[in-house]
Amino acid sequence: MIPRRAQEYYVLGIDGGGTKTLSLLADNTGKVIGRGVGGPSNLHQVNAAELRAALRDSLRSALSTGACFPGRLAAVHAGLAGTEAAGGEKRRQVQEIIQETLTAILEPAGSSKSAIPVVLTSDIVIALVAGSHARYGLVVISGTGAVVYGEGRAGQQAQVSGWGRFIDSDGSGYGIGKAALRAAFRSYDGRGPHTLLEELIVEEWRLNSLRELLQHVLQKEPAVEEIASLAKVVGRAAEAGDQTSVDILTTTSKQLLEGVLTVARKLNLREQQFPVVLSGGILSKVDLVATQLIRGVREQLPLANPLRLQAEPATGAVTLALEMARNGICFENTPLGGM
Amino acid sequence: MIPRRAQEYYVLGIDGGGTKTLSLLADNTGKVIGRGVGGPSNLHQVNAAELRAALRDSLRSALSTGACFPGRLAAVHAGLAGTEAAGGEKRRQVQEIIQETLTAILEPAGSSKSAIPVVLTSDIVIALVAGSHARYGLVVISGTGAVVYGEGRAGQQAQVSGWGRFIDSDGSGYGIGKAALRAAFRSYDGRGPHTLLEELIVEEWRLNSLRELLQHVLQKEPAVEEIASLAKVVGRAAEAGDQTSVDILTTTSKQLLEGVLTVARKLNLREQQFPVVLSGGILSKVDLVATQLIRGVREQLPLANPLRLQAEPATGAVTLALEMARNGICFENTPLGGM
Repeated sequence: MIPRRAQEYYVLGIDGGGTKTLSLLADNTGKVIGRGVGGPSNLHQVNAAELRAALRDSLRSALSTGACFPGRLAAVHAGLAGTEAAGGEKRRQVQEIIQETLTAILEPAGSSKSAIPVVLTSDIVIALVAGSHARYGLVVISGTGAVVYGEGRAGQQAQVSGWGRFIDSDGSGYGIGKAALRAAFRSYDGRGPHTLLEELIVEEWRLNSLRELLQHVLQKEPAVEEIASLAKVVGRAAEAGDQTSVDILTTTSKQLLEGVLTVARKLNLREQQFPVVLSGGILSKVDLVATQLIRGVREQLPLANPLRLQAEPATGAVTLALEMARNGICFENTPLGGM
Repeated sequence: MIPRRAQEYYVLGIDGGGTKTLSLLADNTGKVIGRGVGGPSNLHQVNAAELRAALRDSLRSALSTGACFPGRLAAVHAGLAGTEAAGGEKRRQVQEIIQETLTAILEPAGSSKSAIPVVLTSDIVIALVAGSHARYGLVVISGTGAVVYGEGRAGQQAQVSGWGRFIDSDGSGYGIGKAALRAAFRSYDGRGPHTLLEELIVEEWRLNSLRELLQHVLQKEPAVEEIASLAKVVGRAAEAGDQTSVDILTTTSKQLLEGVLTVARKLNLREQQFPVVLSGGILSKVDLVATQLIRGVREQLPLANPLRLQAEPATGAVTLALEMARNGICFENTPLGGM
C-alpha cells in the first residue's frame, strides 16, 4: 500500500503544543502544500476526546486541498508535547488516535482501511530536527518552560531541565517572570536595589501600585503564562539599562548554557562538531538571552555550531516523515526523551 | 461595664492561622485558665462563615470553664494571619464577627449586650510580643512561609518578605522544599552534584524512583504544605553531611538574616538594644537555620538579642489584651503591617 521510493507521495508533519496543533502536508520533495491548525494537544493537558478534536481540526484543514488521496499518504510524524514523559501504553493510544482520525478523514466510508504508518515523538525532537535537519545535535527550547535535549550519532539521548515548570524553572520565561516579581518586591521592601521592574510590572498588569499587586498575589498565584509573559518586560528594562533585569537575563542564559554543557558531556559530544538549535519564544524574542547563550556555547564548545531556529518546528516533523517514507522503516520503537 | 484595674477580670488572646485558631483565656495575672481550638482563620483562606465557625469552636472551649462571666471579660486581642494585608473595612468586619461570636457565647439570651473591647492585629505582631513581651523589636517567622517584621519605640513598623509564598519564598519552608526538589532533579539529570536528597525525597513521598516523581510533578504541582514538609528531610540530610542540603539551609538563614538587617536599618535600630524573636516550624525544628541566623545576627548587630520563641504565640495576644485592660485604652486604630 505504501508507495516506497515512488514518484508521487505525501507526508504529514504534526507539531502539538500547549496552545495549538499545527499539521503540515508536504509532497515528496518536502514542499508544504497544506496546513491546518487545531486546539492544544499537549499530552499533560488534554484528555483523549480533546486530543481527537484538536487532531481532527488540524488534519482536516491540512488535507483539505484534496491533493493527497488515501493511498498516497506515505508517512506521518507527530511531535507532541508531553510525549517524553508518557509511558508506552499511553503512546500507543495516542498513535492509534492519530491513525483513527486520519482514516476517518481520508476514508469516511470506512471501506478499505489502509495502515498509515504513524510515528510519535515529542515537540522537542522535531524542534531539533527542524534546525539540524537530522536527529543529531542539541536543541535548547526556552518558552514558558525550558528544556535542553540532545542526540548522538549512535542514537543515544540526554535531556536536562524541563522537569515541570514550577520546580525547575531555570532558563525559562516562567523563571524570568518569577525572578522579575521577586526583584520588584525586594526593591519595594528595601532588601534589594531599586529596579525599573517595580514600575514596569505595575504598568504591564494595569495596576495602580505594587501594593495592589501584593493584594493580588497574596490571595492567588497568577497563571504560569501570565508570569512568563513578564519576560518581555524584563527584556525592555534590560535594554533601558536596568541592571537587575540584565542580571536576571544573564542568569537565564547561564542556566541554559549549563544545560547545554551537561547534555554535550553526557553524549560525549565535546570533541565533535554538532549543531545547537535555539528555539522558543524567549530565545527568539529576548535577544540578550540568545546572544549570551550563543557566545557562551562558542567559548565553551568551540566545535559546536549554535543557530537560531528560523523554520517552524513542524517542518522537523515533515523531515522525519519524509525520511521514514524514503527508508520504508517505521521507527515505532525508537526510545525518546530518556536519560 | 469593664472593670478597669479591678481585682478580678479576664482577658482573651486569640492566635488564628492557616491550620487552627487557638484561644487562651487568662486571669488578670496572665495565668491561662482556659484554652480552645477551632479550624483555620487565616483571612486569606476563610470566608465570613468559616471564620465565625472557627472562632465559635475555639472561644466556646476556652470559655467553657465558666470562670469568666460576661461583665468580667475586660479585653480581647486577636492576631489573625492575613490581617496585615486586609483593608480597614475588612478589619472592622472581622472585629464585629469576633464581638458577635463572643456575645452569642456569653449572653445567649441577648438581653444586655455588653461592648467587649476587641483589638485585631496579625499573627506576626503577637509572635513578636510573645517573645519580646512588648511591641518592640523584631520577629522572624519561618514556617511554610516566611516574614520579618519589626516595631520601633515610637511605633514605627517595617516588614520585609512574606509577600506571598509563591513569589517570595526566601527563607521559608516552602523555599527549602522547592530548593530540595530542584537539587534532586539537578542531581538526577547531571547538572548538579549528587545529593542524598534524591533518595530521601523519593523515600519521604513513598515513591519508587525520581522518574516516578517526575511523572507527578509534570502533571500537577504538589500542595504548598507538602513541599514545605520536605524541609525536615533537608534538615536530616544536612545532619548526615549532605553538602547540597547544608548549602540550601545556609542560603535560607542568609535570606532571613538579610531580612533582619533590612528591617533593623529601616527602623534605625542598628545602634540600639532590641530583641530578635525567632518563631515558626523551620526555626524551631531545623536547627542549622536557627543556629546560623543567631550567629549572623550577633555578628552583624552586636546590640541585638536573638532569642528562640519558647512560648505559644497566643500568649503574645494575652499580653496585649492584659495591657489593654490595664490601660483601659482600646488601640483600635493602631496601624499594623505597614512599611
